[in-house]
Amino acid sequence: MSGYHEFRECIDLCLQCAAVCNHCASSCTQEPDVAHMARCIQLDMECAALCYASAQLMSLGSGHATRLCVICADACEACAEECGKHNNEHCRECADICRRCAEACRAMNER
Amino acid sequence: MSGYHEFRECIDLCLQCAAVCNHCASSCTQEPDVAHMARCIQLDMECAALCYASAQLMSLGSGHATRLCVICADACEACAEECGKHNNEHCRECADICRRCAEACRAMNER
Amino acid sequence: MSGYHEFRECIDLCLQCAAVCNHCASSCTQEPDVAHMARCIQLDMECAALCYASAQLMSLGSGHATRLCVICADACEACAEECGKHNNEHCRECADICRRCAEACRAMNER
Amino acid sequence: MSGYHEFRECIDLCLQCAAVCNHCASSCTQEPDVAHMARCIQLDMECAALCYASAQLMSLGSGHATRLCVICADACEACAEECGKHNNEHCRECADICRRCAEACRAMNER
Repeated sequence: MSGYHEFRECIDLCLQCAAVCNHCASSCTQEPDVAHMARCIQLDMECAALCYASAQLMSLGSGHATRLCVICADACEACAEECGKHNNEHCRECADICRRCAEACRAMNER
Repeated sequence: MSGYHEFRECIDLCLQCAAVCNHCASSCTQEPDVAHMARCIQLDMECAALCYASAQLMSLGSGHATRLCVICADACEACAEECGKHNNEHCRECADICRRCAEACRAMNER
Repeated sequence: MSGYHEFRECIDLCLQCAAVCNHCASSCTQEPDVAHMARCIQLDMECAALCYASAQLMSLGSGHATRLCVICADACEACAEECGKHNNEHCRECADICRRCAEACRAMNER
Repeated sequence: MSGYHEFRECIDLCLQCAAVCNHCASSCTQEPDVAHMARCIQLDMECAALCYASAQLMSLGSGHATRLCVICADACEACAEECGKHNNEHCRECADICRRCAEACRAMNER
């Protein structure tokens, strides 16, 4: 089995999503009203961890990858919903990639 | 909620298991009969990735942690079974920590 | 070379430090005055990433491990200094493990 | 500072390199002559860990990122050199992305 090539699109989205979540969490700490961003930071951190783990398992061609993608999709959707409430560039960007990553992770389970 | 303290024992086992799996994978590449260790290396890499992700989510106090622990337990058991076939120190040590980590991860879901 | 056993104490401290930093970052988002904790969250995230990478490279017995430990020690010290300014349990605990981890990482380079 | 956007190209290369290294390590374990691939697996694992940590620190906008990129570049070059000795698709692909990632990481230090 060729994990990387078979799952390439989903891997790329997970990796991009992890990086954007890290960036969003860090940017949130620099917002004037940090308290307003507290939940966003928390969900960014959870989402980044799950996205990277999913990308790792898919690129290793692991049989556990698709099940992990279900949890990852849930985390991405929760993060997208929270980011969608905030009107700044990093949150808009994060909500967008989280939604696309969630969709790709869900599709992994319909193969 | 206090992720780190509530889940401390399971977090510690996951982190130790991740490190021992990395060590086992690396040691396997230096065995005289590497071909014999091929599946062990693969399962070590999968297990290390899942163990660390589980530890991360637990220490973040994430609501996704317990579900991830189910997948982690499965990966630990698969790795323990494979390592149990090999008679060298790093595999014995890895099989042992994998079994204890699997048990702790299963217990997370009975709380 | 036996990465895991040779470097065991430093690996354990790095892994514990990564988990405590994750916990501290998450707990900071739940403090009444989050703005006051903004820099702490940022440094926790950086420190957790470096601590885990250092533990990974040491457990893999990598020749890059000791150089990475220098950067890790710097991140731990910066995090300890910031956490030392805050009077709550998670920051006190984080400052303590960061200081011990920094020391172990520095000692790796005096071998 | 905007870590993600300022360093976007290097982050993307590091993440892609981490995934390709994971894929290469896993594929190596399935080669007929695994013993021949032993060093490749080891360097893939080290390179993947450093690439992901570098991407994390860059996307967090961390001041430690550029120093980490130096170590990452060294790991990428060592991996590229080893992969360059093997005539199979995953090693060729890995050598290629490792070289491009090393270059981007070196360039981070000339800004």
